[in-house]
Amino acid sequence: MIKSILVDFNCEKPCGETIELLSNSAAFVDLGLTLQTWNVKDIAGTVLYTGSDGLSLLIQWYPASPGKLYATISGAARVQQLADLLKKELEEKNATSTVFTPPLKRGLEWNPYIQNCDGTVVENDFQELLFHDKSPFQDIKIYRSNNFGSYLLLDDDPNLADSDIAYTKAICGSETFDFTGKNVLILGGGDGGIINYLRNLSPTKPKYIEMIDIDEMVMKACAKHMRATCGDAMDEFKGEGYEIFAEDCVPRLTRYGEEGKKFDFIISDLTAIPVDASDEKENDNQWDFMKLILNKCMLLLPEDGIYTTQGHAYRSTHGIEEYRAILNSLNVEISSEAVSVPSYHEKWVFYTLRKKTE
Amino acid sequence: MIKSILVDFNCEKPCGETIELLSNSAAFVDLGLTLQTWNVKDIAGTVLYTGSDGLSLLIQWYPASPGKLYATISGAARVQQLADLLKKELEEKNATSTVFTPPLKRGLEWNPYIQNCDGTVVENDFQELLFHDKSPFQDIKIYRSNNFGSYLLLDDDPNLADSDIAYTKAICGSETFDFTGKNVLILGGGDGGIINYLRNLSPTKPKYIEMIDIDEMVMKACAKHMRATCGDAMDEFKGEGYEIFAEDCVPRLTRYGEEGKKFDFIISDLTAIPVDASDEKENDNQWDFMKLILNKCMLLLPEDGIYTTQGHAYRSTHGIEEYRAILNSLNVEISSEAVSVPSYHEKWVFYTLRKKTE
Repeated sequence: MIKSILVDFNCEKPCGETIELLSNSAAFVDLGLTLQTWNVKDIAGTVLYTGSDGLSLLIQWYPASPGKLYATISGAARVQQLADLLKKELEEKNATSTVFTPPLKRGLEWNPYIQNCDGTVVENDFQELLFHDKSPFQDIKIYRSNNFGSYLLLDDDPNLADSDIAYTKAICGSETFDFTGKNVLILGGGDGGIINYLRNLSPTKPKYIEMIDIDEMVMKACAKHMRATCGDAMDEFKGEGYEIFAEDCVPRLTRYGEEGKKFDFIISDLTAIPVDASDEKENDNQWDFMKLILNKCMLLLPEDGIYTTQGHAYRSTHGIEEYRAILNSLNVEISSEAVSVPSYHEKWVFYTLRKKTE
Repeated sequence: MIKSILVDFNCEKPCGETIELLSNSAAFVDLGLTLQTWNVKDIAGTVLYTGSDGLSLLIQWYPASPGKLYATISGAARVQQLADLLKKELEEKNATSTVFTPPLKRGLEWNPYIQNCDGTVVENDFQELLFHDKSPFQDIKIYRSNNFGSYLLLDDDPNLADSDIAYTKAICGSETFDFTGKNVLILGGGDGGIINYLRNLSPTKPKYIEMIDIDEMVMKACAKHMRATCGDAMDEFKGEGYEIFAEDCVPRLTRYGEEGKKFDFIISDLTAIPVDASDEKENDNQWDFMKLILNKCMLLLPEDGIYTTQGHAYRSTHGIEEYRAILNSLNVEISSEAVSVPSYHEKWVFYTLRKKTE
């Protein structure tokens, strides 16, 4: 397999001068490297060595970051050896290694690299693509991961994995609610984690659970490939004490509001709020959707009724204030909790809204 | 900040032919890229474009992986734009994108990239280096992470973070033991997580807790910088119901064995077992050390006494069988549990050994 190592340095001398010194090294020649490009100035430069077996070393520096060298080493073999050698050689020339990545795997069958909401990058151990299809609503993938079990991605966004009971417990109130004899409405939650958890609560099981998720294909795929998460909870869409509707929740919420129907708990596991979204127009639409859902749900809660939802990454960089402002505009008591969700590789914030007396 | 994106492709045609087609693209010229290296054959090649602002595109292919193209895009700006453009251009030439990393941060003050035991790579969100020093035993770093709190690395290996109560609970038996009135010995555990957890168990607190860790500098650094993990448990090394010894545990274990001293529980949080170690000699020494500790501890356990320990990554690739063989050679009942430890980004295996009747 081809691998790449990124290894960067702070240089005491101007980078061009440091690289001139490096060029005298016999070690590169020993590794079979020959010079392809030599474009060296003090403040900017590009140097490329390649070897007969495809081993390569690209060194770059930029006016924007004086005194910093950026090396990229790629190849099928001897990548680590060359990276270690470069570090040793440059340290002898008073440069200090800063970033030094482990070998990054190239050309894999699936892309295992994912960016978290806080901008950090992780490689997931996707072993097998268990399911891939496009529904009318989204691209659906389920991978098998050794560490996280079955791992659902919607439009390539990590959604939930078998490892994430912490997510399900948190969105269900972290074991602080008594669901005994209550009516519960789940919005979204197509992975089946929440409905499976609630149906198996004993002896504090709700009286009735209703779930509305727009995407039947997600539910069917999860029912088959994520059974550690959903168990048999979605094998049948209707049974004793529960019903699942594969449809857009908005018309049903509207109708329930008109009918005066109430749920003691509403657990909203719809698409993440538009915090961190880069597309402003899409962003606006998502805020509007969120407000619509919140307002419709508030009508379905009795006094002291509870609405819980997943929110956003603990370290989301913007949008949080707008989100809190929307929540604050409702007649609710708000509490939140940040929880480590294993497959997310970062903490996630969950909200509980308790409807105040009118 | 300089960033790099790695983006790889499967090509229908030979790579050289695909790249010849790509060279006609006006888009690269629009981005201000000029050709630096053009070394193109069907089965192997290196092509390097650079721009005036340091944007660069390196495309490589190798005889070892026919039909696969490997592109590395680096620069201070327009990195994502160029990666997206390359993907679009190559897809028009019947190539399929496989790996497509998020932007990888270069030249950071600290290296945030860590390799898990299963070979996957993660970037941690290290915000601040709270502590760095070298003790006689190891290099000690404590970073502040937004997601994981204070984050301890020993010799650059992730050890424990404030987020990892799951680790502490697991090594203490996952809440299945009753410590009430018992004597507990902790080996290692210099981060203070275990002793803090046990001292605060209520109402099932042990009668006496003894902890032996070789590295006083680790304990003092954690007592200052990892208080979410250790609380005040290591502020004083001796107090009501506990004592901490900053020393090599082996002589003391030997003496206790000679004296016939017993502990109801021994919790061994010493260095990870040598699973996955690459250096064979060091490996052998570590196995020997592990066997030494195990044998000495078995003498300190009464019948039904319990020894728990952290083991290895769930997906460690070798060494597990040797480890299990060593455990199986003891007169103990063995059970194990794999637990998601947030800052590890992978599951970790914990073992419980219960001493059988002689």
